[in-house]
Amino acid sequence: MKVTILGNNSALPAFGRHPTSQVVSVYGALIMLDCGEGTQVQMQRYGLRWRNLEHIFISHLHGDHYFGLPGLINSMSLLGRTAPLNVYAPARLNDMLNMIFEVADTELCFPYNFHPLPEGTAKLVENDMFSVTCFPVNHRIQCHGFLVERKTRGRKLLPANAKEYEIPAEFYENLKMGEDYLRPDGMLVKNEWVTDEGPSPKKYAYCADTVFTDSFLDVIQGADTLYHECTYLHQEVDKAEKRFHSTAAQAAQLAKMANAKQLLLGHFSSKYRDLEPFREEALAIFPNVQVTIEGTAYEI
Amino acid sequence: MKVTILGNNSALPAFGRHPTSQVVSVYGALIMLDCGEGTQVQMQRYGLRWRNLEHIFISHLHGDHYFGLPGLINSMSLLGRTAPLNVYAPARLNDMLNMIFEVADTELCFPYNFHPLPEGTAKLVENDMFSVTCFPVNHRIQCHGFLVERKTRGRKLLPANAKEYEIPAEFYENLKMGEDYLRPDGMLVKNEWVTDEGPSPKKYAYCADTVFTDSFLDVIQGADTLYHECTYLHQEVDKAEKRFHSTAAQAAQLAKMANAKQLLLGHFSSKYRDLEPFREEALAIFPNVQVTIEGTAYEI
Repeated sequence: MKVTILGNNSALPAFGRHPTSQVVSVYGALIMLDCGEGTQVQMQRYGLRWRNLEHIFISHLHGDHYFGLPGLINSMSLLGRTAPLNVYAPARLNDMLNMIFEVADTELCFPYNFHPLPEGTAKLVENDMFSVTCFPVNHRIQCHGFLVERKTRGRKLLPANAKEYEIPAEFYENLKMGEDYLRPDGMLVKNEWVTDEGPSPKKYAYCADTVFTDSFLDVIQGADTLYHECTYLHQEVDKAEKRFHSTAAQAAQLAKMANAKQLLLGHFSSKYRDLEPFREEALAIFPNVQVTIEGTAYEI
Repeated sequence: MKVTILGNNSALPAFGRHPTSQVVSVYGALIMLDCGEGTQVQMQRYGLRWRNLEHIFISHLHGDHYFGLPGLINSMSLLGRTAPLNVYAPARLNDMLNMIFEVADTELCFPYNFHPLPEGTAKLVENDMFSVTCFPVNHRIQCHGFLVERKTRGRKLLPANAKEYEIPAEFYENLKMGEDYLRPDGMLVKNEWVTDEGPSPKKYAYCADTVFTDSFLDVIQGADTLYHECTYLHQEVDKAEKRFHSTAAQAAQLAKMANAKQLLLGHFSSKYRDLEPFREEALAIFPNVQVTIEGTAYEI
């Protein structure tokens, strides 16, 4: 499970940094969190396949978090996509998208489903690979964070070993569930002889634009990786609060309170060229910090 | 008078080429024609100052011609712009922009004026430096081309010469208008001794997405430079017509019929990596052809 950062800057593009977007990859499925202007080109640049992307989540309706969405959807349609696309976003975005399609006389060539975000915390998607939950954060307008949880897929089969013990293929699914195998000759094949440990459950918490708050701490508690915005350094904490944004120190503080294992920093103000001070500020409070770099895929 | 190409591709960004946008520079003023996704970043990249941009013209409401506009306007406001901005576009774009501002709780910090395009041909702006006229082209939805005309500013004063002949500064404006100067001592100072030829009137015609047609030939007749879309090579002329687009040969044909001095080609389909065949196809019909390159400023 990885997250690839496509845009790590705040609203004004600067220093080659783009507005917010990122893609979480779970068992080959792609999940997009926010879609700032230029996201379709960033996906091309970093080799992420659109056809594996079926779920897009938009945290709020400030343009730097969704202005890339109409273009991405248009391009998918021009390329003859057939897979369905699900967009989860504040309800008004649907009005906007419908108007955009209508004035362009656009008929999408794939099933497109819009899911308005509820006000509170809610599970939005659940399948056998992952679930995505939204939770309210505290920004100037209504805004959500997202929790992406990878499910376990049981144990990992070692086919060569299973063959050596003459286990029939019909029993392989039981092996993945952890069962031992009793052979017709009475020999008990222990599960750990023919399987390895499978992928463990994982939690990735994306805390979109928000002022520092512990109001959603229970949702993100124990996250393997926490992405938290830090528009400013802490010497600008007053400005951060006034604008409903956070500082690197506050992001680190929340990662610590949440007992997260790793903290990713992003949404940097365009006033900062050098991002090293963000790392230093956060590291003083929390030990495992990454200042995100666009195009990099971080293991969750 | 120059035009800088910011995006020369059709709807799908490809091979590093962007959707349509270009900026015409007249006496230091900037005029934008279309504003595809990523335009604000392209302007930064090529050193075009937003503050000199007061007029933006949108040919039609296919996304690849305007999806960069909301982001550009937002960024102008975030940077504290004070100069007015005029947008000339199909009326529905105003509804969209207003919805975008409303859901984001955005108050622009500069005067913003929206001018809906009329159906037919009309002069949209006229000042002492330039005028811009829109004219209908023939596309799948209502679409306009634009004619940008630079005005002469009279003759160019040579201050050192004027001083040598002891001409008072109050008379300089008359010199620019081409007058001779009669000195108190009776000597007639010929205008050409103290001035050079000034900038001549120029015509730049931008023929946005359109099928081949001569319906607007009278408007673009005698253009110094004609920009014409050529989404396809001529072997795809049937596809071009079906999709209300043109071929390189057709663009060249129109440049010839219009007695243009130079033809700029753009809006290339993303199926073409190599653009040299566009140049060759057009050159067989019209002698002065440029396959546009993003970031290049073409003299008009």
